[in-house]
Amino acid sequence: MRIARFSIDGNVGFGVLERDELDVIKGHPFAEFERSGQKVPLDKVRLLPPVLPNKVVGVGRNYAEHAAELGNEVPEAPVIFFKPSTSVIGPGDPLAYPSFSQEVHHEAELAVVIGRMCREVPRERVKDVILGYTCANDVTARDVQRREKQWARAKGFDGSCPLGPWIETDLDPSDVTIQCTVNGEQRQLGRTSDMVRPIEDLIVHITEAMTLLPGDVVLTGTPAGVGPLNVGDTVAVTIEGIGTLTNKVIKRG
Amino acid sequence: MRIARFSIDGNVGFGVLERDELDVIKGHPFAEFERSGQKVPLDKVRLLPPVLPNKVVGVGRNYAEHAAELGNEVPEAPVIFFKPSTSVIGPGDPLAYPSFSQEVHHEAELAVVIGRMCREVPRERVKDVILGYTCANDVTARDVQRREKQWARAKGFDGSCPLGPWIETDLDPSDVTIQCTVNGEQRQLGRTSDMVRPIEDLIVHITEAMTLLPGDVVLTGTPAGVGPLNVGDTVAVTIEGIGTLTNKVIKRG
Repeated sequence: MRIARFSIDGNVGFGVLERDELDVIKGHPFAEFERSGQKVPLDKVRLLPPVLPNKVVGVGRNYAEHAAELGNEVPEAPVIFFKPSTSVIGPGDPLAYPSFSQEVHHEAELAVVIGRMCREVPRERVKDVILGYTCANDVTARDVQRREKQWARAKGFDGSCPLGPWIETDLDPSDVTIQCTVNGEQRQLGRTSDMVRPIEDLIVHITEAMTLLPGDVVLTGTPAGVGPLNVGDTVAVTIEGIGTLTNKVIKRG
Repeated sequence: MRIARFSIDGNVGFGVLERDELDVIKGHPFAEFERSGQKVPLDKVRLLPPVLPNKVVGVGRNYAEHAAELGNEVPEAPVIFFKPSTSVIGPGDPLAYPSFSQEVHHEAELAVVIGRMCREVPRERVKDVILGYTCANDVTARDVQRREKQWARAKGFDGSCPLGPWIETDLDPSDVTIQCTVNGEQRQLGRTSDMVRPIEDLIVHITEAMTLLPGDVVLTGTPAGVGPLNVGDTVAVTIEGIGTLTNKVIKRG
């Protein structure tokens, strides 16, 4: 099942994708829900970020080839960082090039959407706390990341976390392709089976320390091939079995 | 004016402190508000964290003596990190010792409460985006911080951000004392005038990258004297002109 969040005529809701329509959900998808039967055509709505996460938890260096391309070793423990809610934008939203960086990179990633409040999740229960999966771009100001030891500004600026286009609830995430194109040209291509640490390990590691809330998002790291984005570029993250998240890079107004 | 957030009989509200009573606010304090005239005695309410921040933005090594005591130099740019909303607890709330650390430290800090949505704030406008000030404890798992390069787990675990007891809107924060005691014994004592970078610089630096929302909190760094907390300890942060934030360290249940 694919669940999208959308706005139409000033109203915001969730809907289940059925070919080219959304069947509007009564309430929200973080509990048992009913479909209303009310359909809205996909081409009449504006798709929003499929969730409004309270926090996005990122994982660094989770693909060995990507760690190597930036001259880093695969760390002993996963590298965990936050992207704030203010960094999230939706599919089709413009990505404003930040004024404090001259080297902004794309990082295509599989995003895990948390379905229920959880803490200290045992490995065998991880599946129970996941609502589904979406595409993410862990946009990074690489020059700032090199200069500043903590990544809050480099990975937390406004617009640095495109999410979408929807949540796929039925995906087996263990071996799907992740691709990133810029202006239609392939830049990144990887398989989730190449993650250094699988999703189960990441959720265990994160929730050992902190509570995850419904709608929180866990990013799972990016495969090799990261590179610069420039104003005017169209960047697209495609994950097999989910879809494509597209954003255009614009000059900050 | 001192604004507290409280619960009584299952209701949550904001109130203005008048001696030993709270005058209940109609609505919330992030816009023009009226006092209702309805009074509740302070000893009948439970004080909550004075805000529920969407994000807490921390600043590392902003007092030279503290940087030195951990063997660090004062960095060229402020060290910026996030503590998530799930790390926030209120005055009097128990601080549960995290299971993944054996060395949890107190860090008494002045907290700035943001009053309005803002981005790219010019230095001379910083005062306009601040609602007031409260006490914070930037509780840190020091062993985890040493092991993990990004501080998300070390400084973001549940309970690692006590805030309170209330917001003081009339404070001049440029030169007040910050004190931390453990079981009544003084551990930290500093003056905000010793900050390496004043509040104006921090807000400019943070909002160069990201939007701050009403209720977001900016921590301003801790003076020298950080040290371990143990189960059973009572830790208190006192800031001149604000008040005292007290929490007891308990074993995780």
